[in-house]
Amino acid sequence: MASTIEINERRYRLPQRPVVVICFDGFDPSYVADAVPRGLMPNLARMMVDGFAATAMSAMPSFTNPNNVSIVCGAPPRVHGIAGNYWYDRASGQEIMMTDAGPIAAPTILAGLAQAGVAVAAVTAKDKLRRVLGLGLAGGGRSGIAFSAECAGAATIGEHGISAEQALGGRALPDPYSADLSLFVLDAGIDLLQAGRARVAYLSLSDYVQHAHAPGAPEADAFFAAVDARLGRLIALGAVVGVTADQGMTDLTRSDGSPNIVYLGDLLDARFGAGRCRVICPITDPFVRHHGALGGFVRIHLPDDIDVETVRDVVAAVPGVWMALTRRDVCARFDLPFEREGDIAVIAAKGVALGMRQGDHRLEDLAGARLRSHGSVAERPVPFILSHTPDAAQRHRVRTETLNNWDVFDFVLNCPAASEAAA
Amino acid sequence: MASTIEINERRYRLPQRPVVVICFDGFDPSYVADAVPRGLMPNLARMMVDGFAATAMSAMPSFTNPNNVSIVCGAPPRVHGIAGNYWYDRASGQEIMMTDAGPIAAPTILAGLAQAGVAVAAVTAKDKLRRVLGLGLAGGGRSGIAFSAECAGAATIGEHGISAEQALGGRALPDPYSADLSLFVLDAGIDLLQAGRARVAYLSLSDYVQHAHAPGAPEADAFFAAVDARLGRLIALGAVVGVTADQGMTDLTRSDGSPNIVYLGDLLDARFGAGRCRVICPITDPFVRHHGALGGFVRIHLPDDIDVETVRDVVAAVPGVWMALTRRDVCARFDLPFEREGDIAVIAAKGVALGMRQGDHRLEDLAGARLRSHGSVAERPVPFILSHTPDAAQRHRVRTETLNNWDVFDFVLNCPAASEAAA
Repeated sequence: MASTIEINERRYRLPQRPVVVICFDGFDPSYVADAVPRGLMPNLARMMVDGFAATAMSAMPSFTNPNNVSIVCGAPPRVHGIAGNYWYDRASGQEIMMTDAGPIAAPTILAGLAQAGVAVAAVTAKDKLRRVLGLGLAGGGRSGIAFSAECAGAATIGEHGISAEQALGGRALPDPYSADLSLFVLDAGIDLLQAGRARVAYLSLSDYVQHAHAPGAPEADAFFAAVDARLGRLIALGAVVGVTADQGMTDLTRSDGSPNIVYLGDLLDARFGAGRCRVICPITDPFVRHHGALGGFVRIHLPDDIDVETVRDVVAAVPGVWMALTRRDVCARFDLPFEREGDIAVIAAKGVALGMRQGDHRLEDLAGARLRSHGSVAERPVPFILSHTPDAAQRHRVRTETLNNWDVFDFVLNCPAASEAAA
Repeated sequence: MASTIEINERRYRLPQRPVVVICFDGFDPSYVADAVPRGLMPNLARMMVDGFAATAMSAMPSFTNPNNVSIVCGAPPRVHGIAGNYWYDRASGQEIMMTDAGPIAAPTILAGLAQAGVAVAAVTAKDKLRRVLGLGLAGGGRSGIAFSAECAGAATIGEHGISAEQALGGRALPDPYSADLSLFVLDAGIDLLQAGRARVAYLSLSDYVQHAHAPGAPEADAFFAAVDARLGRLIALGAVVGVTADQGMTDLTRSDGSPNIVYLGDLLDARFGAGRCRVICPITDPFVRHHGALGGFVRIHLPDDIDVETVRDVVAAVPGVWMALTRRDVCARFDLPFEREGDIAVIAAKGVALGMRQGDHRLEDLAGARLRSHGSVAERPVPFILSHTPDAAQRHRVRTETLNNWDVFDFVLNCPAASEAAA
C-alpha cells in the first residue's frame, strides 16, 4: 500500500496510529480564552502546551457546510463548490440546500484515505452534512463509515457502512436541539476507535450551545467540560487529535439585548421595488431555531433590468454592512466558486446580522435570548489545536503565512507522531 | 504654487475647498450599524449615501498613536516608526512614550500641505499626539496650527500657531475624561474653517465614551448625536469631509461581566523566573483610567539567556492568545518598524485583554464597568465614510485591494469634489 495520497494538490501521509479531526462547530477563540484558564478543559489545555495551538482563518462565508467541506477537502470553496448552506440556483430558479445540488466538485481526503485502504469514519451532528462527507466514503460497497447523530437510528451497512445498533452504541438518539447531539458524535468516535473500526475519524459537532450561550455561561461551561473529557478519552486511546472549528460566534445584540439586524430585503424593496431583488441567507438550513437564519453574510440576486453596480453601491452604504462586492470581486477576494455566487455578496460589520425582510425571520424562536451568530469576517478566526507537535516546516509556515482551518488534515496526518505507532 | 505634493511615495492634490479628516477614535463599525439606522446620525447617514462608505483596516497594533500617525503620513508604522503609544527602548533601558522618542521617521501630509502654502490645522484631543502631528507644521515660524483640546488654554502663536484665546474660542477647557474633549476638537475645527484659518483640518477625537459604553447606551447615543451635528456644520461650510477611526472597540468581558484578562507577566514569571521577561503594554498612555492599560497587543522583551523561540511557543499556546510572533515575523506580517519591536509580539484573541501581572493594572478604575478595549486584529476594521464620491479608480481599488484608514487623505484630497470650489 502506498504511503501517501494526493488530494486537491496536497499530499497526506497514511497514518500509523489513530488520527481524529474534530470540527468543533462555533468554537469561537473567546471560549478557549475563557474556559481553559478556569481549568474547565484540562485536556485541551494539555494539547495546547504539549502539542500545538494557533488561530486559523475559516473559509468565507463563515458557515458550517462550506467549512466542513473545506476541511475534508483540504481546500477552499472555489475548489469544492460548497459556498453556503442554502443557495439560489439561477438555472432552475429554485432555492435549495447547496448540499442537495449534486456531488461536490472535489474529492475528499476521507474518501482518498479510504480508497488507499485506511479505515475511515465520518460522524456528523446533522444528516445533511453527513450526505456530503460520505460521498466516495461510505455506501455503494465502499469500505468507510459515515453517519449522523441526528439519524444514527436509521443507519444501515449498505448506505452508512454501519448498522443502526452499532451507530447508536447503546445511546439514546439525541435531541437535535441539544448539547447531547455533539457529545453523541464524540462518543461514537470513541467507540469506533476503541473497536478498531476507524484509523481516521472526522467528528463534526453542532454549535447549538454556542449560538445560545456566551463564554462563561453555565450551559457553555458544562458543555465544554463534557467535550474535554472526550478529548481525554481519544488521546488515551493513542490518537493524534486535531481540533478546529468551522467558524467562531459573535454576539449580535444592542446594549438593550435586542438583535442588531439590518433587513436588506426591506431596504432593497423600498429602493428598487417590492420583490425585485432576491436576498438569500446562506446560513439557512433545516435547523434554524437557534439563529433564525440570521448571520453576517447574504447574497443578492437581481433581475436583468436592475444594474448590479448601482445596487452594490447602495448596499455598501448601508450602516452595518462591512462590504458589498460583485460576484467576480467576492470570488476573487475570498476564493469562492463563481457559478454559485450571487450577483452581489454582502458581508456584515462585526456585531450585525443581515436579514431579508422583517417577518421573514422567526425571531420569536430566540425566546428572548441574545442573538449570537456568524457568517462575516468577524467569525473567521478559529482555534487550531493539536495533541502533537507539527514538524518544523509546518510550524514555520504558521508564522509567515495565513493558517486556515482546512489545513488541519495536513497538520495531523503529516505530523511526525502520526507516522509512528502509538506508545 | 504646485498643484500636487508627494509624501511618502503618494501624490496628493492641493484642495480648492475646505477638506476635513476626522479620526473618530474608537468608532467601531458596530456603532455605525446601531446608531445610523435609528436616525441618530442623519449627517453621517447622508454621507454614506451621497458620498462613500466602506470599512477600512487600521494599522496594527490597533492603538491611537500608531493609527493617527499612519493617517497623517498616509503610510503604515514601518514607514514612520510609531508602533505603539508606549515603548521599551533597548538602548537606554527606559520605558517611554514612543512620541517622546524624537521626531517621527517620515514627513506628514499635513506638513507637506503647509509647506506648499495650504492653510493647515491639526486639533487633537490629547496633547501628546498634538506634539507629533505638529512636527513640521506649527511652531518655529511655520505657518500651520496644531493644538490639543487638553491644553488649548496654553496655546501660543509661537508653538501652536494660535493663541490660547483663539484656541479656546470662548469654550471652557474640557475635562480630559469626558465626551466634551472630542466635541471641543470638532468645534475648534468648525471655528478654524469658518474663520478661513484652515483649508485642511485634521481633527482627532478621544475614545473615552466608547471605552465605557456599548452601542445603544444612552451615553453613546448622546455623544454620537452631538458629533453628527458637528459633521453637519462642517459640510454646511462647504468642506469635503472624511471620517475614519484609529481602531474599533470590543467588549472584553466574560458572561458575568468580569474582565477577560490573560496576565502574561505572571505566566512568564512562573515559567522563566520572576522578573526575567518584561511585558510592555503599548496601549499605555498618560490617560489610562478608562481601560487600565489593558488591550489586545503586548510586547515581550527577554534577557539574552532566554531563548526567544521557546518563549514564543509557550506564549502561543496560552489560551486567549491569537498569535505570538518573533520580532522579524511580526514586522513582516504587519508592516511594523523593526527597531522598536519587542523580541516577541503577542496578539490577543477577540474578546481578550493581555496584561502584565495581576496588580499592575488599576482595575478599580473601571468602577465596575465592563472592560472595552482594542489593540488586536479584532479592532482593525473601522468605518471609512466620505461626504463626496471618490473617483472611479479609487472606488474600484476598494473592491479589489485592502483599504486602510491611512488611505483617507488620498481619498479626500484626490476626490473630484476637492478640486472644485465649494458650491
